[in-house]
Order: sequence, then C-alpha cells, then structure tokens
Amino acid sequence: MEADTLTDVQDRLREEAATERPAAETPEIGIIMGSDSDLDVMMGSETGRPGAYDALTDLGFAEQTADESPDARFTFETYVVSAHRTPKLMYTYAETAADRGLDVIIAGAGGKSADLPNMTASIAYPLPVIGVPVQEKSLPSVIGMPQGAPIVAVDAGKSFNAALSAVQILAREHEQLRDQLQAYHDGLQESVATTSQDVHSMGTEAFKSRRDE
Amino acid sequence: MEADTLTDVQDRLREEAATERPAAETPEIGIIMGSDSDLDVMMGSETGRPGAYDALTDLGFAEQTADESPDARFTFETYVVSAHRTPKLMYTYAETAADRGLDVIIAGAGGKSADLPNMTASIAYPLPVIGVPVQEKSLPSVIGMPQGAPIVAVDAGKSFNAALSAVQILAREHEQLRDQLQAYHDGLQESVATTSQDVHSMGTEAFKSRRDE
Amino acid sequence: MEADTLTDVQDRLREEAATERPAAETPEIGIIMGSDSDLDVMMGSETGRPGAYDALTDLGFAEQTADESPDARFTFETYVVSAHRTPKLMYTYAETAADRGLDVIIAGAGGKSADLPNMTASIAYPLPVIGVPVQEKSLPSVIGMPQGAPIVAVDAGKSFNAALSAVQILAREHEQLRDQLQAYHDGLQESVATTSQDVHSMGTEAFKSRRDE
Amino acid sequence: MEADTLTDVQDRLREEAATERPAAETPEIGIIMGSDSDLDVMMGSETGRPGAYDALTDLGFAEQTADESPDARFTFETYVVSAHRTPKLMYTYAETAADRGLDVIIAGAGGKSADLPNMTASIAYPLPVIGVPVQEKSLPSVIGMPQGAPIVAVDAGKSFNAALSAVQILAREHEQLRDQLQAYHDGLQESVATTSQDVHSMGTEAFKSRRDE
Amino acid sequence: MEADTLTDVQDRLREEAATERPAAETPEIGIIMGSDSDLDVMMGSETGRPGAYDALTDLGFAEQTADESPDARFTFETYVVSAHRTPKLMYTYAETAADRGLDVIIAGAGGKSADLPNMTASIAYPLPVIGVPVQEKSLPSVIGMPQGAPIVAVDAGKSFNAALSAVQILAREHEQLRDQLQAYHDGLQESVATTSQDVHSMGTEAFKSRRDE
Amino acid sequence: MEADTLTDVQDRLREEAATERPAAETPEIGIIMGSDSDLDVMMGSETGRPGAYDALTDLGFAEQTADESPDARFTFETYVVSAHRTPKLMYTYAETAADRGLDVIIAGAGGKSADLPNMTASIAYPLPVIGVPVQEKSLPSVIGMPQGAPIVAVDAGKSFNAALSAVQILAREHEQLRDQLQAYHDGLQESVATTSQDVHSMGTEAFKSRRDE
Amino acid sequence: MEADTLTDVQDRLREEAATERPAAETPEIGIIMGSDSDLDVMMGSETGRPGAYDALTDLGFAEQTADESPDARFTFETYVVSAHRTPKLMYTYAETAADRGLDVIIAGAGGKSADLPNMTASIAYPLPVIGVPVQEKSLPSVIGMPQGAPIVAVDAGKSFNAALSAVQILAREHEQLRDQLQAYHDGLQESVATTSQDVHSMGTEAFKSRRDE
Amino acid sequence: MEADTLTDVQDRLREEAATERPAAETPEIGIIMGSDSDLDVMMGSETGRPGAYDALTDLGFAEQTADESPDARFTFETYVVSAHRTPKLMYTYAETAADRGLDVIIAGAGGKSADLPNMTASIAYPLPVIGVPVQEKSLPSVIGMPQGAPIVAVDAGKSFNAALSAVQILAREHEQLRDQLQAYHDGLQESVATTSQDVHSMGTEAFKSRRDE
Repeated sequence: MEADTLTDVQDRLREEAATERPAAETPEIGIIMGSDSDLDVMMGSETGRPGAYDALTDLGFAEQTADESPDARFTFETYVVSAHRTPKLMYTYAETAADRGLDVIIAGAGGKSADLPNMTASIAYPLPVIGVPVQEKSLPSVIGMPQGAPIVAVDAGKSFNAALSAVQILAREHEQLRDQLQAYHDGLQESVATTSQDVHSMGTEAFKSRRDE
Repeated sequence: MEADTLTDVQDRLREEAATERPAAETPEIGIIMGSDSDLDVMMGSETGRPGAYDALTDLGFAEQTADESPDARFTFETYVVSAHRTPKLMYTYAETAADRGLDVIIAGAGGKSADLPNMTASIAYPLPVIGVPVQEKSLPSVIGMPQGAPIVAVDAGKSFNAALSAVQILAREHEQLRDQLQAYHDGLQESVATTSQDVHSMGTEAFKSRRDE
Repeated sequence: MEADTLTDVQDRLREEAATERPAAETPEIGIIMGSDSDLDVMMGSETGRPGAYDALTDLGFAEQTADESPDARFTFETYVVSAHRTPKLMYTYAETAADRGLDVIIAGAGGKSADLPNMTASIAYPLPVIGVPVQEKSLPSVIGMPQGAPIVAVDAGKSFNAALSAVQILAREHEQLRDQLQAYHDGLQESVATTSQDVHSMGTEAFKSRRDE
Repeated sequence: MEADTLTDVQDRLREEAATERPAAETPEIGIIMGSDSDLDVMMGSETGRPGAYDALTDLGFAEQTADESPDARFTFETYVVSAHRTPKLMYTYAETAADRGLDVIIAGAGGKSADLPNMTASIAYPLPVIGVPVQEKSLPSVIGMPQGAPIVAVDAGKSFNAALSAVQILAREHEQLRDQLQAYHDGLQESVATTSQDVHSMGTEAFKSRRDE
Repeated sequence: MEADTLTDVQDRLREEAATERPAAETPEIGIIMGSDSDLDVMMGSETGRPGAYDALTDLGFAEQTADESPDARFTFETYVVSAHRTPKLMYTYAETAADRGLDVIIAGAGGKSADLPNMTASIAYPLPVIGVPVQEKSLPSVIGMPQGAPIVAVDAGKSFNAALSAVQILAREHEQLRDQLQAYHDGLQESVATTSQDVHSMGTEAFKSRRDE
Repeated sequence: MEADTLTDVQDRLREEAATERPAAETPEIGIIMGSDSDLDVMMGSETGRPGAYDALTDLGFAEQTADESPDARFTFETYVVSAHRTPKLMYTYAETAADRGLDVIIAGAGGKSADLPNMTASIAYPLPVIGVPVQEKSLPSVIGMPQGAPIVAVDAGKSFNAALSAVQILAREHEQLRDQLQAYHDGLQESVATTSQDVHSMGTEAFKSRRDE
Repeated sequence: MEADTLTDVQDRLREEAATERPAAETPEIGIIMGSDSDLDVMMGSETGRPGAYDALTDLGFAEQTADESPDARFTFETYVVSAHRTPKLMYTYAETAADRGLDVIIAGAGGKSADLPNMTASIAYPLPVIGVPVQEKSLPSVIGMPQGAPIVAVDAGKSFNAALSAVQILAREHEQLRDQLQAYHDGLQESVATTSQDVHSMGTEAFKSRRDE
Repeated sequence: MEADTLTDVQDRLREEAATERPAAETPEIGIIMGSDSDLDVMMGSETGRPGAYDALTDLGFAEQTADESPDARFTFETYVVSAHRTPKLMYTYAETAADRGLDVIIAGAGGKSADLPNMTASIAYPLPVIGVPVQEKSLPSVIGMPQGAPIVAVDAGKSFNAALSAVQILAREHEQLRDQLQAYHDGLQESVATTSQDVHSMGTEAFKSRRDE
C-alpha cells in the first residue's frame, strides 16, 4: 500500500487540474526542487545569495500556498518533488501543470543525475521549463537534452536569474511586468555606477578602508 | 573612416526600429550568430543534424529577408554579428531589437569566449535571449552570467531545441503555436514507439540487417 | 489524441504484466536503450566492439521477440524507450517489469542527460537495474543517483560487461550460469596467456610481423 | 620473514574456505575497504552521511565478527584490505570469497589508483562485486574495467546505495528481503511527500523559519 | 529614464576624451574590473596576496583619482565597470580610452562569462589590453578570443603580474621603468637565494623551527 | 664534446649581442618555437589557419634571416629552440635577446610541459614575452607563472593574435603601426558586415547554396 | 580446470626464478603490458612514434626471448600480462621478477583502470617499476599510488622515455650506459640546432617549401 | 649588478663540483623545491602528511648541510631553487649535480607551470630526476616531457613515495638499502593486517568507538 501523504498531494494536484479557474487566480510560476536541502539555493537565503523567491517578491509576485491565496496579481507556488525518490509525484506534477494554470515552471535539482528539470520538461511539454542546476556538477545533466525535447537552463545556483527569465517570458503578455523588470535593472545599473564613481573618486585605498570599516 | 557596409547595416536596423509596424509584419524571432561558419550548427545542415531553421520551418515559420516579406503569420530573421570583431554592430542589433518588433532572440557563438549571446542579452534586456553554445567549449561562457543579468541556454550545438524553446515562449500568447508544438511531439513519440515495436518484434539481428540494407 | 503505436506497445506491456507465466517462459533480462542509434553500443556491432547481445548469446541466452519464443532456458528481450521523448512508455515499461517476469534490466542511454537508466531504476525498484552510459559523457548522469535510489553502472560503452554482470546476478540462483561464466573466463585467460607466450618466444619484431601479415 | 598478523588473517580465511558451513551461517555480504580511513564513507558516520552499515542494519542485517555470530538470518562481515600495501591479503580474501559462502562483495577504495574493487572482482569472479569509489577521483579507476572483466559501481561515496544494490541482488532469491526493500522505499517516499506538503502549505518563509528554529 | 550616476560617469569620460592633455598628466594604465568584489584580487589585499596596486606602487606609480592628481610621473586609475550589468558604461570606457591618454588597460572579471576584458579589448583596439581572470573558471572566457581580435592574458588571480607586464610594455619607451623592473627582480632573486642558503645551512628541521617560531 | 651546430648558433647569438646596431636594423620581434613541428601553428599554413607570419607580413613586416636583411622598416626573425632538448641554446637566446635589439618575443611550445615561453620570459626579463600554447593542453603550463615572473599569453594555437598583440605593443612608439592595425581591423569589420548583409538579404537557404556552389 | 598455456607460462617463470644465473645472462629490463593492442605504444611502431623497443635497441640493448639469448651485454624481455583478465599470471610475474634477475620493470596499461603497473610495483617491491599510461586517461590510475607504495611514471604513451629512464637507473652502476645516454643526447641536440639554423637561414617560407617537397 | 647571496650560492656549488670527494662523503640524494612554501609537502609536516624527509630518515639517511657533515653512510641535501625567479641558480644546480656526487635528484614544484623538475632533468641529464608535483594542478606540467627528454614522476604531493623511489634506485647498488626498504614494507603490511583483524574481531561499531575515544 502506498503512503498516505504521497497520495494526498497527488490527489490535490489532479483535483486542481480538473477545476476551471480564471488565470488571475492560479499561480503563473511553479517552482519545484528535488529536496528541501535545495531550498536555500532555489529560493535564496539570508546568509547566502538571493534566489528565485527574492527576485519574484522584488518584482511584485506573492507566494500562493495551500493555506492562503494572496491578493497580488502575479503569484508562484513551491513544491518539493524528487525524480528518483518520488517518480510518481513528479509525473503527476508535470502532467497536471498546464491544466492547473501554470505558465512557466522553474525546476531545480542537485547531484550529477539532476533529472527533475529534464523529466518535468519532457512530461509538461509544451509548457516552458527553466532548469536550475543546484550544483556545478548538475549542469551537464540539466542542459544535455536530446533533439526534440527542449529545456532552457541558467547557470548553476542562479535561481535568481531563472526567476528573472521566467518573468521575461510572462512579460511578453504583461506590460506591467516589463516595466518592473526595467525598474529593477535601472536600480542595478545605478548601483554599479555609484560604486565605480566612489572607487574612482576616493582611490583604491580609501575605498577599501571605508568598505572594511 | 568606418567601412560602408557596416554603417549600412546599422542604419537599416535603426530605421526599422524607428518605423511603426504591426506585430504580424515584424519577425517574432531574431537569429544571430558570431560567424557564417556557425551557420550549419545554428540553422541545420543536410549532412549534419537539423537546426533552428529546420525546426522553425517545420512549425510553420518563414524566414523574413531584406528582399522578401513572406506571407506566413510567424517569421524569423537571420544576421551574422560578431561580438569581438564588430562590437558596434552587436550593440546596435541588441539595442534596436525590441523596437524592431522581435519577441525572442536566439544567439549562437562558438569558441571559449562566446560573448555574443551574453552581451546581446544584457543590451536587449528585458527581451528574452536564448543562448546557443556552438561548441561544447562555448557552454560555460554562454551560461555563466552574473546575478541580475539573465540569459537562458540550451545544450551545445542544439539550435533545433532553441527554436522549440523560442516557440514555447511565443505559444503563451498564440494557441496555434501550442498546437503545432503538440503535433510535432506526437509525431516524434510515434516514431520512437514504432522503432521500439520493430526491434522487439524482429529481434536485434533482423532489425540491424534491415537497417543496414 | 495520442499516437497509435505508442498506445499499442504500452497496452501489450500491461497485458503481459497481468498474465501469469512460469519463470522459465519469461525473459530473465530486459535490455532497453534510449534510441536505435544506441544499438551498436548496446548490443555489439560487427565493425566495432562486441556488446550485450554477443555476451548473452555466448553464454547460451536467446532473444525473445514478439514474434518468437526461443527454446533456450534463459532469454532476454530488447526495447527502444526514450526518457525524454516517450516518458510514458518508459514509465509503463519500468512499472510492469517485475510483473512481466524480468529479473534484471540493462538500460543504456547516451548524451549528458542520460536519464533512462536512473528513472527506470527508480520506477522498477526493487528490481536491479544495470546502467550503461552509451558515451563517456553519459557516465556522471547515469551513476550519480541520490541516497536511497540505487543503481549500479558499468563503464561507458561496456554493454558486454553489463551482460556479464547481469548473468553474475542470475548465477546466484542458477549453477548452470555460474559454470558458463567460468568457462568463458577460462577461455579468456588462455587467450591472453597464449599471446604472452608468443610475444615472449618470437620477440617483439617477429610477433608484430606475423600480426601485420 | 613475513609479519605474523598478516599470516594469521590469511590462514583464518583459508580455513573458513575449507570448512563446510550452511548458507544461513555464513555472511551473505562481505565489505572490504583499502584503509580504516575509509570507514566513515564505507559504513556511515554519525556526523557525515549514512553508509553501508546503516543501510544493512536498517534492512535487518547484522554484522558477523570473529568474536560473535549474530542470530539474524542475513549477515555481513567487514575487513580492511589494501591492494597496494597488502596485495597477498587481497588475493587471499578474493580467492576464498566464494568458498567462504559470500554472495556479494562490496569493495571500497579511495585515491586515483583505486584498484581494490577491480582486482577483487577479477580474482573473486564470477562472484558479483559492487565497487564504491571512496572519493570522486576514485570513480574512473573503479569503473574502467576492460571487456571481459566485469564490475558494477555506485557513485562516489555512496556505500549506502551499494548496500541497497547488494540486497537487491540477494532479493532475487529471498522474498523477505524484497519486502524489506519495499518498506524502506515507502518510508522514503512518504518523507519526501510530507516535506512537499509542508512547504506548499506553509510557504517558503514559514517553512524555513520552522526548519531553522 | 536612465539613472543619474551612470550618466554622470559616462559624461565625465567623454569630456576627458575631448580634452587635450599632455601625456605626463594622464594615467598610463587604466584598471577596470567587473565588480567591487574583485577589488582584493585586482588590487591586492592585506590578508590575501598582493595585486596590481601593490606592484604599481612598488614600481613608483601613483593612483590618479577624480579628486587628486598625484605628482608622480607614472600613474594609473581605477574603475568598476560591468559588461553584463552596465554594458553602456563599458562601451563608453573602452571607446574613450585612447583619447583619454591611456597606454595600457588591465581588465579583470570573474565568473564563467568573464566578458569585460574581451569586450574592452575589442572596442578599445588597437590599445593593448591585459586580461586578468579573477577566478580559475574565468580563464577560458578571458583568453579564448577569435582570430583578428587580440587580447593577452595572465594567469587567474595574478593581477600583480598583469601590472608587471603593463610596465614591461611601457618600459619600451621609458628606460626609467626598465631600471625599476630590474631592481624589483634583483630583490626577488636575492630573497630566494637567501632562503636557499638558510635551508641548506641550517637543515630542514632547524629552518622549519625558526620559521614556525 | 658538444655538437658543432649547437655551438655555432649560440656563438652567432652572442656575437650579435656584442655588436652595436641601430634599432632599425635589428628585428623588432623574435619568434621561437620548441620544434619545427610547431611551424604550421606558429607561422600559419596554407591548409590550416593563418599564423604569426601571415599577420606580420600583412602588417608590413618582413622576415630577417641569416642570409638576408630586408628593406622593410619592421622585421622579425625565426628560431627553433627546445627548452627540454637544448636548454643551453634556450638560455643563450633569452639572455642575448635585449642586447640583440629585440623588442618583443613570441614564444610557442606544445605538450603539457610547455616550458619554453616561461623560461624565456624569466631569463629575457624585463623584455616582454608573449606565450603561444601550441596545443590546448599547453595552455596551463604556459600561463601559470608564479608571482613576480610575468608572462602574457594568447589562446591555444592563436599565433596570429600573438603577432597582433606584439604589434600593439610596438605601436605605442610607432604611429605607423597603429594605422596599420586600424586598417586591418576596418577590413575585418567590413568583411563581417558584408556576410551579415548577404545572409539577411538572400536568406539562409540561398546563402548556403551560393556558399556551397 | 585451469587453461594449459597459462600454467605453462607461470611454471617457466617460477623455474627461472629458482635457477641461479649470472647477472650478465638475465635481462636487466622486463617490459610488460596489459594487452597486445598496447604493443605499438609500448614498443614503438613504424607508422606511429618510437617506443621502448626503439630506445633500447638504439642504446645497444637486445631482446631476450624464450628461443634466443642474444650476445649483447644488456638485454630486455617482453610479456603480455593482464591485471584484470590474468591476475594470477600478473602475480607470478611480479613475485618472481627479482629472483629472475630483473633490475627494472617497465609496465604499461591502458584504460581508466590501468592497474597493471601499480599492482606489479606493489608485488615486485622493492624492485623499481616505471609505469607507462598507454592512454591519456590511464595516467591518474597509474600514478595515484598511496603513501608507502612507490611507483614512478612517465607521461601517457611515452614508453620511449620510460626506456631512457630505466637505462638512467642502470647507468648508476654501468658507466658504459652513461656514455650511451650522453651520445644519444648529443645527437638529439645537434638535430634541433641544425633545424634552428636552417629555419633562421632560409626563412620560414623557404624552409617550409623544402620540407614539403 | 647581481645580488650577493645568489652569487655566493652558485659559487659554492661550482667549487664543490670542482673538488674531488669520495662517494661516501657526498650526498646521494639532492632535494630541491621552487619555494620554501613547498617545504611541508616536500619534506613532510607534523600536522600534515609525512614527506621525503620522514621517509629518508626512517630509512637511515641523514641530512647533509653546509654546516654539518653527518656520520651516516647515506645522506641527502636540501635547496630552494626557483625556475622562474632564479633561472641561473637552477641552471648552476643542475649543471653541477653529477660532479658534486649526487646520484638522484628529487625536484618538487607547485603551480601550473611547474618547470623546475623538467628543466633540472633536462640540464642534469643523464642523472635521474624524480619530479614531485606539489599540487594536483602541477602534475601535467611535471610529467609532460617530450620524447628524448626523460623524467619520472610521482603523484601530486607524494614526496614520501619519491624518497622511497629514490632509494629503490640506489638499492640496485647497495644491498643494505634493499633490506631497509623491505623492513619498512613488512612493518606497513603488519599495520594494515592488525587493523583488518581488529575491525573484523570487534565489529564496525566497537572499532569506531575505540578509535574515537
């Protein structure tokens, strides 16, 4: 007999897929990862570098959970799904994704056999899937798909950029997101320019002193 | 004094950007590559493997050239642009891309310093760019973008898949493309299944004999 | 609507799984591969090196096809199954494997995302799966399974050895196979020893002359 | 004159090989490693990740030592054997393995010249040997056997999976072990599903807060 | 609207390029890097190894900042310029470099897509650019330029040597710099020779004791 | 007793170093390589890609040989010097380089121990040396110099670019060379732009047809 | 029952070890390799590069075979011995090597598990063994011995140099060999110097023309 | 003018080479390394792993310094010599090595351009040189010598084994050293056997508890 929670999660996914809901109520972006140990890389961490969660909330998205439907126009959801330990759950998630209203999936996996992004891309096709290799060594496995089975990937560990790319895709339809992306980038450029000006004005030694204070 | 053709090409790009045209008249997909020696990998070749040209024409796209505007609803254009040999042309192409009506850019480059996809992604932002490493050794350079500067990439040499991914992005808005993608995939699956049935029915030896006849 | 042959193959697998058959009538070993272009590596070729087909027939196995049930006590079957192009077929094959009477699966795949052996091992578990990386670059993807999801692998391209390993597993129960394995090995040793004696007796130059005649 | 303990250990192995014992009294699985510094990787450690010892005891196996014969139906034994520092001991262990009643050997070694698994597989043939590369850099040396000399390998450091694979081999004959393997896997799937449900219900931030409490 | 500081910095660069200044008043060497996190590698750090700043000040150069024009005959300047986050600033810096009086540019960048040195070399051509890969993985991207687009590079992280190389180039015209380089090298050789003599005189153990005191 | 020609070559180098000659009569650039099998990579070949010889003659340089002093203002010379087979010759060449009037050395070597460029840079210091790794595997050995011992390198096999870089160094003093470099680059850009225009005007298929005619 | 020739070869090795023979009658150098497919790399080939056979016969050694004892003072012998296919033969060869009068063993093996040189070094210890990785991928396995188990290695495929190194070891005792080594080297230097002089005298173009005539 | 100590060291080497001394008074083994930061790897360290110093003193050798001539029959000496920073000192050391009575040189260097062992082998030829790559990345540079220029190498960081190999070479002439090597190995084997017996007797858990007490 199969374990209860595993069945519960799959049942809910299938029910949601069978339910008609307006696009504005379903999450646009689905984020999945192979293990909760991938959570810091995939979503960002306070001590490490920012991730998809940080990028999306910066751009005005909110997380939609089982317990709460946020007011924000654009939302994402988060699941842990293991290709090798829960192959059925992976299958159900990918198969129901389009019917559940998702527009893009961001899928991250670590290790050398990082099959989750690829298998999800194959099953959820033609929904676009952005693969995030959680470790450097996961990159070949994530990106190496055969002809006819498309996936796009970002660099190892860069779930932040995967989120920007997902929003770039959505921005084809939503001018509001295009503006958000532009505003983010203007801020980034200004920040680099300010650093450049400071180093050049103060000189290397003074700049480093101030930085290390 | 700068060379004439170089100026001509840039001038035309800027003019097109300044001209208001309906979305259906501009190419949806722009394909650029660092050198015409990348043409077989980026577009496909009769003796090698299929490329973006083959995938797009299979899916109903037509190539829009300077000399001809095809009737097809969905089109793409092709340019040779070198990051290291014609940096100004690259800049102009990327800077005018959105205003020229492109929705996605597929950019391919070879060598270890495959900067064209990345620089194009940085300048054309927030337009989505799909990088194609023309050689295996080009992959790290294409995919390794810093946080805040998004690009997505496909595996080395797989411009065919880059085209499928570009159409997956466009298919968010165009249901007709979603159907085309599905039909392509059904044919692919049927072809694998037929091979499987043949091998299993005839046995290895007989199958190989027939294949090698 | 899904393609016909794909459905047919899956239906037959499910029917066989539902049918009770004595162990001596079902194939002991199932050989699957991602594409028929893997056939020379997985089964052996006359111009390249020998493969699983050669090893198994040397050891007295016969291939069981849809059309023919051989008399031999030990048999194997062959299918083409693509993880990325026919994920459902892969799922069905792996899920029905134990009920169809298989004892070991040999699964080969090429490319950098060689997911077939791993996904099959995950779904067919606890049936043992021996992964064959069809190319050198497929090795990390085949062998890198996470804790709790076992697979064993042989070196890239060595389907011949995968077959020997599969028979070693079966030989735990079947003394006749243990004797076959021993006889094969004695022949191999004798062949090396004869070469050694020849080189040492004739000297390097004479041996090479004879060889190159 | 050769050292005493070295002779003692070899003598005992040869005596056990010469003694007739029922299968239920001899260990099914022999675990050997090149150095006691491999012990944490090969058997598992409290601070690191679990290993073969943990997997086997989870599945109901007990360790059989020189001093104690456990009541458990299924047992394993542990030896330190160095290919390069004690080649004779390695030879004696491998040569006597079948006669001492072993069904499978799990052999681990570190470094770039990880010869222990390969040499043991060559000498103990046709007994199946599962190689465990103790370090990433040991993988090529462990897996790269020539045609005709079979070994199967797991990923670097994954002795836990090697133990599962060894039990998968034994489970061909022992239905009780098949059930144990299935029960282990059900627990694993349930654990992933519960995590997935928790992340999805609580949302990323709340889940991480609870985890880091 | 574009950010203010970004525009300011570019404006100042263009103004300086338009201003006629004697060679002795402009910096000979321009040092740029992709991020201020590259500062320790590019300029040197008290806790890490010395960098370009240390080498240049050792050889009598002074840093010229926006706020201060040093008396020294030979000077360098420092800017932070990101190829992927501020492509326009990079373009402006490289395009104005020759007119601003620079003789050599040292450009450092990290990550796998270390495009700053290459793009700068392409745009500032024929001004010589010395690329510094800030990380080991940046080396292929920095050095892999296509035929016709020259760059020279030093080893990863070795901005100290890049500075020596820059001065070697300037020393073709300035005998005073040739003498400075020679004096530096004589000191270096003497230091190695003294260590050699000490080890040889005291013996290994005594030398290590003194060192570890 | 040492071989005669080896002594002869060294004697001539020492004599030239002892002779006072005006700068315009000595070669500006010295090209050395570890073996005459490096000649096609270092100088260029009709069937392979162009090399340093092609670049330099394109830019107006002439080769100065023992037998002939060309009229051209700028010249280069060519020697075969092996670090591992003729260490004394290498030492003599490097030691006399500055006194013989060379301004830059281009040194190429193949294999994994490509010591010639490094040792030459160390001995000829502070004369600038541009290292050319003749094979991809020679790159780490050529570029990996320790702190204090500068070398600059180009990408593997790119002696053409090494020549451009050498001329960039000389162009600091010689405006005529700066103009030559610029003219070369304008031609290169025009060639890329023309290709771009042709592909875009004719379309992919027509362009490829013309190319393959 | 074991194969006959295998037993014969081992018996002869043991008999020779038990027989007292003067040093001048036994071969100084034993050359072994894992397969006769290694013969071209290990001994040299007319179409490929020279090997150990060529180096030794150049230096005055003769091959001693089972059928013939040459008059030369210094001799070598050749055997094919496979670590993985004939482990007992390997053991016997290594164990008897010192008693059979060998002074140095040159052992070559290909593949990723190139265990022959290492195991031979471990068993034949303290006899010096020079390992020759027959392929590039064999190098890590050959050289990676653990502390306490010495081996020395040459670069992949360089059996010619292994022979020179073996003679360098023997030359500690035999001044005649030291002179032979010196004479070989003088010829080598002269040959490089002549090439250098020719290139420099004729110039690149003329030299290449003559070479390609 | 050259620095004083550098000249002093070279002068002493040349003087020693010119002085006739009996073999028993000169060191048999010369140990050189590129920097005193290599000292812990080359000689061994109390906190890291043992090195050449430890191996040699274990085997009865003593270090001969400028200040002290030990009574021991077999001795070694230690120098710091940098190929890239003190090329003349390296030349002098290698050139005088044979005349100074050395029988074997152990040469270690770190970095990617680890030229010291190779250049020393080329200059000191036909004296045997054992190269020690101080870091993993130094291995290709140390081992990759061209045909005709022999070196033998040990694995990265294994100066302990280099010392054993050097003594194996000397042991061809000195039976006393052969006995020392054998005694060392017997102890090593006994130590492994005792560990094996302990693990097997106590069982994994008890053994680990005792170890971690």
